[in-house]
Amino acid sequence: MQELRIGVLGFGVVGRGVVELLLTQGELLRQRTGVVLRLVRIATRTPARDRGLPLGEVELTDDLQRVVSADDIDVVVELIGGLEPARSLLMTALQSGKHVVTANKALLALYGHELFPLAAARQRELLFEAAVAGAIPIIKVLRESLAANRIDQLYGILNGTCNYILTEMREQGSPFAEVLRDAQAKGFAEADPSFDVDGIDAAHKLAILAAISFGSYPDFQQIHIEGIRHVSDIDIQWATEMGYRIKLLGIAKQDEGRVELRVQPTMVPVGSMVASVEGVYNAVFVRGHAAGTTMYHGRGAGERPTASSVVADLIDLARSSRAGCGGRVAPFSMLPEALQQFPLRQTDDWRGEYYLRLAVADRPGVLAEVTQVLARQQISIDAIHQKGRSAVAAVPLIMVTHATSERQIRLALAEMEQLDAVQETPRFIRIEPNVV
Amino acid sequence: MQELRIGVLGFGVVGRGVVELLLTQGELLRQRTGVVLRLVRIATRTPARDRGLPLGEVELTDDLQRVVSADDIDVVVELIGGLEPARSLLMTALQSGKHVVTANKALLALYGHELFPLAAARQRELLFEAAVAGAIPIIKVLRESLAANRIDQLYGILNGTCNYILTEMREQGSPFAEVLRDAQAKGFAEADPSFDVDGIDAAHKLAILAAISFGSYPDFQQIHIEGIRHVSDIDIQWATEMGYRIKLLGIAKQDEGRVELRVQPTMVPVGSMVASVEGVYNAVFVRGHAAGTTMYHGRGAGERPTASSVVADLIDLARSSRAGCGGRVAPFSMLPEALQQFPLRQTDDWRGEYYLRLAVADRPGVLAEVTQVLARQQISIDAIHQKGRSAVAAVPLIMVTHATSERQIRLALAEMEQLDAVQETPRFIRIEPNVV
Repeated sequence: MQELRIGVLGFGVVGRGVVELLLTQGELLRQRTGVVLRLVRIATRTPARDRGLPLGEVELTDDLQRVVSADDIDVVVELIGGLEPARSLLMTALQSGKHVVTANKALLALYGHELFPLAAARQRELLFEAAVAGAIPIIKVLRESLAANRIDQLYGILNGTCNYILTEMREQGSPFAEVLRDAQAKGFAEADPSFDVDGIDAAHKLAILAAISFGSYPDFQQIHIEGIRHVSDIDIQWATEMGYRIKLLGIAKQDEGRVELRVQPTMVPVGSMVASVEGVYNAVFVRGHAAGTTMYHGRGAGERPTASSVVADLIDLARSSRAGCGGRVAPFSMLPEALQQFPLRQTDDWRGEYYLRLAVADRPGVLAEVTQVLARQQISIDAIHQKGRSAVAAVPLIMVTHATSERQIRLALAEMEQLDAVQETPRFIRIEPNVV
Repeated sequence: MQELRIGVLGFGVVGRGVVELLLTQGELLRQRTGVVLRLVRIATRTPARDRGLPLGEVELTDDLQRVVSADDIDVVVELIGGLEPARSLLMTALQSGKHVVTANKALLALYGHELFPLAAARQRELLFEAAVAGAIPIIKVLRESLAANRIDQLYGILNGTCNYILTEMREQGSPFAEVLRDAQAKGFAEADPSFDVDGIDAAHKLAILAAISFGSYPDFQQIHIEGIRHVSDIDIQWATEMGYRIKLLGIAKQDEGRVELRVQPTMVPVGSMVASVEGVYNAVFVRGHAAGTTMYHGRGAGERPTASSVVADLIDLARSSRAGCGGRVAPFSMLPEALQQFPLRQTDDWRGEYYLRLAVADRPGVLAEVTQVLARQQISIDAIHQKGRSAVAAVPLIMVTHATSERQIRLALAEMEQLDAVQETPRFIRIEPNVV
């Protein structure tokens, strides 16, 4: 029986999951592919550590080159993450004629424009189902299942850490810093949480999803990114009171060829499906002109869920290899020669409803000052709330606008910040009333 | 540029959607496949009818053989539905060397064991993404994306007509017959609704999903089928009162190699995701040993959503054709030689909690008679409710059991039906407390 010889870079959580699947599901994988998926070698900084797996003939090494340059490897599975040495290793692997399967969203978002053309030039596959949304097969769905559609909108909960934190803040009524510490203790957040809570990780994933949806190479620089550090427990309480949930959404919209890409805390109606995605789960909603909106939900991270997607890519390779074909599906669904950079809609042009939070001195005239600023910026108010009284401390002033441009919101908040009565930096959260 | 020459059988709702996609999205399809998807001919009983589409060079005929036997067609898209002449036409198409794309769930569920081996013998593809759940790409997800998983459980809302009727019954508080008439008037139910409301259509789809999940040819005969005709407005009210929704679920479970397949009205907790799938939408939940539970949601029928899946299959064919490969993925994920018939768990062996509804005379001693029957069958009661009083009419008696076998439930209800005080056939609804 034909073989696919596999080398793995990285033996952390996901690496362990992939190795376990390959070692325990050999028969199932042969029955599905007609190919032996043979794990040849694992490169890790800590080859001596016991992972509790019966490795048998599998070779362990701390020499990464023994995977990417070896003659006895057909496909390199990259699970070390980060930009370097991952980027150099994958370039070496492709240059030496190996296929690549990776879960490295950061690398693809930032260096996809280098790696994919190299793979095409060498006629090798560079597969990445596990790079976005863990077990959810959103890459294959976008590249293949929805390929008859013009996609005009995609949004999703792409970072489980943020969704867990926002869920806990609401359920416990606790502030961000406290919930983050708790999440770190439980292993749901990293010691340095900034990639997650500042929205960077979600933006890497959004760059990849937008590339497939609209037909371009991923371009991380185009994305407007806001994380969840400024979401306060006051915002969460008000959202609940007004019938919303706050979610960190990655949003990609296309309108007449112009594209809007953003990662932002967003208020969504409490009865919507996206509001019901809680804890560490991920979900992606895609609107195609023929399919309408379809939705995909599952575990966005973890040893086995992510390994499920890595091994799905290996199965794809094995099946293509047995059927004698390669390059069946272009990395971003469109053939490379049809890819184009899409012109971006500037944040100034975005229109929508906004939630505004100010901390103001509790004295006569303040409301008049604030509403005059809104009037100057032609911003029309749907609702205004002020609760609580204090002679000394600031009190929250909450406003919800009718549809307006983000440019006007930003100008208004900058102007308000200059007012004597406004005692903290004003914050806003975008409202998306029409999500599914 | 290479061409894929397409012939379409049937020019009804879905046929129109497919033709429109092919005619209007030619450039997108070329950019995604590198192949011209050329619509050559449409066979329909009513070629003269105006569908409002710019057909140009496309030939219209009422001679179905001019599609399945013609030399200038590479792939036949079958959208006429039903068993004959669809079955004979597709056998002719495969025998004369054509690929087939079909949305015909009934045909595959009943004659898959003939058609797929024929396709394999002729080295032709027989693709069927559109046969299950409309726009939701559940076939590709099961065959490819989750292929590294042992799947032990799959359930879903597979029939939009039933889900619409159950949703309306709950929202309007109206009985089944009235909501059905309304659904027929709106075009959400057929003039003869039995395929939908008796669960047959959902069972056809479940047969196909179970075949892929567990590795067999579809076998419609194995499925236990109950429709929604006996769901009363009383059941819906009590479900709501007890924190449940009633959904017609297709359920496939595997446990130690034995399989349970059923289509049944089912009570699911009101906070579950499956409970939130309303109206004409479909959703499928799949539990794999590595991925965990992933969920897929979207429009289960309709012109464009179904056409989106039909054309996805055509794109698959075009990409394989350009890459020079065929038979990459086996129809049921496993290679044909690895498929097996799975032993069935009999309904008697199923265990679960049950909701029971009786119509009883309102007089002393009735409760004792009924509960003695339950005691004899060793059925333990979690809750019992009787509301309303009547000297003349029967009153509803509602019970919820602890986990018990379906055999015991059926024996108990048969015995209760013999009691003088019991005035209608007793009904039960299975409770699934652990759905996602």
